[in-house]
Amino acid sequence: MSDLVFNRVAFIGIGLVGSSLAHVLRRDKLARSIVACARTQQTLDTVRELNLADEVTLDPAAAATGADLVVIAAPHSAYVEIGKRIGPVLAPGAILTDVGSVKGAAVRDLQPIVPPGVHLVPGHPVAGTEHSGPAAGFAEMFDGRWCILTPPPGTDPAATDRLKRLWESAGMKVEIMSAEHHDMVLAMTSHLPHAIAYTIVGTATDLEETLRSEVIKFSAGGFRDFTRIAASDPVMWRDVFLANRDAVLEILARFTEDLQALSRSIRWGEGDKLQDLFTRTREIRRGVIEAGQETPEPDFGRHRGG
Amino acid sequence: MSDLVFNRVAFIGIGLVGSSLAHVLRRDKLARSIVACARTQQTLDTVRELNLADEVTLDPAAAATGADLVVIAAPHSAYVEIGKRIGPVLAPGAILTDVGSVKGAAVRDLQPIVPPGVHLVPGHPVAGTEHSGPAAGFAEMFDGRWCILTPPPGTDPAATDRLKRLWESAGMKVEIMSAEHHDMVLAMTSHLPHAIAYTIVGTATDLEETLRSEVIKFSAGGFRDFTRIAASDPVMWRDVFLANRDAVLEILARFTEDLQALSRSIRWGEGDKLQDLFTRTREIRRGVIEAGQETPEPDFGRHRGG
Repeated sequence: MSDLVFNRVAFIGIGLVGSSLAHVLRRDKLARSIVACARTQQTLDTVRELNLADEVTLDPAAAATGADLVVIAAPHSAYVEIGKRIGPVLAPGAILTDVGSVKGAAVRDLQPIVPPGVHLVPGHPVAGTEHSGPAAGFAEMFDGRWCILTPPPGTDPAATDRLKRLWESAGMKVEIMSAEHHDMVLAMTSHLPHAIAYTIVGTATDLEETLRSEVIKFSAGGFRDFTRIAASDPVMWRDVFLANRDAVLEILARFTEDLQALSRSIRWGEGDKLQDLFTRTREIRRGVIEAGQETPEPDFGRHRGG
Repeated sequence: MSDLVFNRVAFIGIGLVGSSLAHVLRRDKLARSIVACARTQQTLDTVRELNLADEVTLDPAAAATGADLVVIAAPHSAYVEIGKRIGPVLAPGAILTDVGSVKGAAVRDLQPIVPPGVHLVPGHPVAGTEHSGPAAGFAEMFDGRWCILTPPPGTDPAATDRLKRLWESAGMKVEIMSAEHHDMVLAMTSHLPHAIAYTIVGTATDLEETLRSEVIKFSAGGFRDFTRIAASDPVMWRDVFLANRDAVLEILARFTEDLQALSRSIRWGEGDKLQDLFTRTREIRRGVIEAGQETPEPDFGRHRGG
């Protein structure tokens, strides 16, 4: 396990996920030194105050120089520029990874700049909150959640394994799959729910004023759950939808068809069809509980009514 | 406040909401006796075991006879039949209310059977969990939530006030509005979210087998929140959509338009439009927090990631 300790870990971008990983590295003493790069001095000041890094810089190349682990924890739209800056300085034997929500685009944007001897192992820790920024991070965020690694074909298994053990140290269960498969699964489990939550909250925003204020007042009826999701980082999510465009559009199209079928059943009073659907969906909920993604106890803190 | 105590409270139907109210009546000693009517002996046995009623019966008329408060806590599709059975036995001065999620249909179905001297005050406690049945109820379910009363024009204000104080005793904030307005507000805050949650979980159900099992596995990315909502009572929700058809179809149409606009922005790479929308929706979230429908602290128990 001694090879799990990295000499110099560089974070390129350090928001909710990056800072949470930095907390883990500190807690488990997995990095002899940490360097953080961000776009604004304000972020770097916060990182300093929280003692999340030993060194801070506005220059990605300065951060990546000499690092044996480079973690890109920035929005997808920055990947190409970051790659251009850090590619020339990546040290042989280093591992380059990221924590983004779209993996096909990560491979597409980063593989061309990876020099021989550097290991590209894109990753996606499926954990987070609706809060953003380095002050929102905490080490326990990863506990019991899944991390998906998508090493391109030909990647050194030892590099993948080392990164796997790092995320396991953070408390995650690690799964390895292709970038394409990852993007389709996440389009369904995460990107579509976010697209829907953003849309429904937008629909409410456009209501007449009196109706809108009452929607907020009576939001406990289900709407409130959507507002939490729709409070997630706007730039990150803009980039997720653009980077995973094809899979998201495919899943959105399936969902829209199904929603129109539901509308039609409501319009024509097809009670049996509605009840069948609503009964089937309970099964999936049982699957989620059995898969350990949720405890089965009633959650008294989160009431809801019709 | 002494007039708050009812002599005989009859529950016609007693599931999650009815049993929770019965717990409140017991706790606060607001009913000298409680009688529960259900469609199955099994439900009545459970009610007996939990000591939620002093008397149980399969006959709605027997339950309503002599009651000074009759609470219909059954799915909407049963209202007409229940009305037919209890109308003839309702005692002068009694209050007839319900706890259903659609109020226009409640007025439409119940007003014709209400004899002179009986006060019809439809109500909707906006509280619940995804669990159903009398064993799922608990007195604290109503704490801090809203209850909406929709007395038809001409209703005796004293009757409305008495019911208002009953729900306040249960810990609810009470608001009075027209049935039509209620149905439009709830179509947005509750019925649309449920329609969407049922649909997205249905879309996932139809995925190819391997993809479906992974959707369950990685559901922490947002999908999990929808599965909870989509586990709600199928019969109750079938009836809600059919009873509030016009308002639900109107809101569904607005949402579908907005979702198609989002799809279009993703397809054509309109990053600015996406970011604008995602930034606006954060404001609504702030409104929900300020309205006290949610605590602002990070909810570490409910992680989510992209």
